[in-house]
Amino acid sequence: VLHAVILAGGRGERFWPLSRSGRAKQFLSLLGPETLLARTAARLRPLVPLERTIVVTGRDQEPLVRESLSDAAPVRILGEPKGRNTAPAVALGALAAGRNDPDAVLLVVPSDAWVGDDAAYRAALETAARHAAASEALGTIGIVPSRPETGYGYLELGAPIDATPGLHVVDRFVEKPDAATAAAYLAGGRHLWNGGIFVMRVAAFRSALERHLPEVAGPLAALEADGTLDAAALDRFYAAVPSISIDYGVMERAEQVFTVRGAFPWDDLGSWSALARVLPAPDGVHERGETLALDSEGAILYSEGSLVAVLGLPGVIVVQTPDAVLALPAERAQEVRRIVEALRTRPGGERWL
Amino acid sequence: VLHAVILAGGRGERFWPLSRSGRAKQFLSLLGPETLLARTAARLRPLVPLERTIVVTGRDQEPLVRESLSDAAPVRILGEPKGRNTAPAVALGALAAGRNDPDAVLLVVPSDAWVGDDAAYRAALETAARHAAASEALGTIGIVPSRPETGYGYLELGAPIDATPGLHVVDRFVEKPDAATAAAYLAGGRHLWNGGIFVMRVAAFRSALERHLPEVAGPLAALEADGTLDAAALDRFYAAVPSISIDYGVMERAEQVFTVRGAFPWDDLGSWSALARVLPAPDGVHERGETLALDSEGAILYSEGSLVAVLGLPGVIVVQTPDAVLALPAERAQEVRRIVEALRTRPGGERWL
Repeated sequence: VLHAVILAGGRGERFWPLSRSGRAKQFLSLLGPETLLARTAARLRPLVPLERTIVVTGRDQEPLVRESLSDAAPVRILGEPKGRNTAPAVALGALAAGRNDPDAVLLVVPSDAWVGDDAAYRAALETAARHAAASEALGTIGIVPSRPETGYGYLELGAPIDATPGLHVVDRFVEKPDAATAAAYLAGGRHLWNGGIFVMRVAAFRSALERHLPEVAGPLAALEADGTLDAAALDRFYAAVPSISIDYGVMERAEQVFTVRGAFPWDDLGSWSALARVLPAPDGVHERGETLALDSEGAILYSEGSLVAVLGLPGVIVVQTPDAVLALPAERAQEVRRIVEALRTRPGGERWL
Repeated sequence: VLHAVILAGGRGERFWPLSRSGRAKQFLSLLGPETLLARTAARLRPLVPLERTIVVTGRDQEPLVRESLSDAAPVRILGEPKGRNTAPAVALGALAAGRNDPDAVLLVVPSDAWVGDDAAYRAALETAARHAAASEALGTIGIVPSRPETGYGYLELGAPIDATPGLHVVDRFVEKPDAATAAAYLAGGRHLWNGGIFVMRVAAFRSALERHLPEVAGPLAALEADGTLDAAALDRFYAAVPSISIDYGVMERAEQVFTVRGAFPWDDLGSWSALARVLPAPDGVHERGETLALDSEGAILYSEGSLVAVLGLPGVIVVQTPDAVLALPAERAQEVRRIVEALRTRPGGERWL
């Protein structure tokens, strides 16, 4: 039976002034009326009912999860006392999902990515789940690249599996490539983006965890023995585990990994400039809310109520929220954190953080 | 006796989104808590009491004048039914000032300029008033140029008058020069900016008006014969006069014109980019309100409440008001009107005009 584990522990300030300390990207309604987390849950719902959906988030972020998911009552929310990257979070989700279901198959997905075709996304997950259910292998969804992206990790495709279209062995995980390598990957067709989507039987995952990441498997067994996932138990678990990603800690070390080619538009929304790829662009300007652009090809304008008007600023990003305005060139969108840092040290600056 | 005539009939949208249709530049608090009009009245007050201050404005702008001048009760406000440029406005002010004072000397000043040294400004006006009181000549204050400005008219200095320092005959008025000519003016020292400040006896002005601008002098005599300056009388006057400036209609044609060198910082605040000259610039960025600038030398940031944060945009102008944000390069500040035009034709756009 399928269980969803939605990873919603992300922090970050890359979408300042929208993202404030308490409100990470997954809790923002960047691209529509719903938050990215709510969109993620809605996208999975035809495959997995809310009763079998687990959201792993920061303990202090639990209220934001409930606020995001208006029908959150049946969802299981597990609050991490501190962030320890994804391996402990997935381990925790696996424990919760597998407790009453020895045949549980996990769909592990990030809560804060953008998907352009929900049906294709689900089709890929279903294909992966079918294969995972009958296998010891750990699965992933590999996203067909649409550009030579240097900001993502890649999966290198190996042999096809069975006669299932798009199902392949993964020969290896590749870290973020340089530009030339990324271009070669795009041209070669043998590399897919690693979007952090994993599909596997709980038993297979736990077995791999024991072999490759005993530092997490040990505390997980202790947590299981506790017989509870209450705050004190989670405190003990998180005090015992290292901070390590599932990619590095488990997937890259596992003997059998497979992938399903996912040919859907996808973006991890790494910064404001990513909105150029996913926001509508009438007349070449990417707009959300009330905007007006003259001579500003490629601008990204984001308004939460005011009219945002620009002239003669091609490729500029302008963001308006009720108490702040941000303007910078799209190619420097990563530097938003410098503004956040400057506010941290400025007297009174915390009111915008 | 001195009388002040403050010309406050200006319209304009060069400071959009601050300046909306009903609120022209003189009614904006661009540079401090007070409006430019209120600053102008305060600047003149040591020379002229409010009882002898006349504000000529658009009839529909009278409430804005009262709002600007908190102690406006004794001020005479004359509301023009339509704008006819400055000659009719000055004529009207001269009539009102001269009615009970045959020796009245007028100080005619724009309401919407910036002055960096009030005492020096008043000293120049006093020098001019002393000379005007004993003369048939029409006076002006010539502002010592601080840059080769091509956006202003100039006065060409003639012979010195008496032994009074800074007092000169004006040989001619010069229209806005090209860049090379403006540079030569600046280097030569014989040209001063025409800031639209005029000082003259009412009798001398009316005599010049009769000689050089009978199209205004005639209706003015009719208005005087009416014995009232009520709305109906002003309607008749404004229906009868042409639209013409005092510079072109009277000053350039007058036989005797003098000027007093005004060595004070001055700016007509023609657009947002002018704020670079008059706003404080800690760290090279011109700021008003809550702002934060990184790698944005020469930026002009204007906030009415929100934090305005920019990064990597040297020379950008960003303006925030409660319902709009404007961003454009300083060198294109004149093009703000294109945004206003675009809003005029956009469904619903009038709410920002």
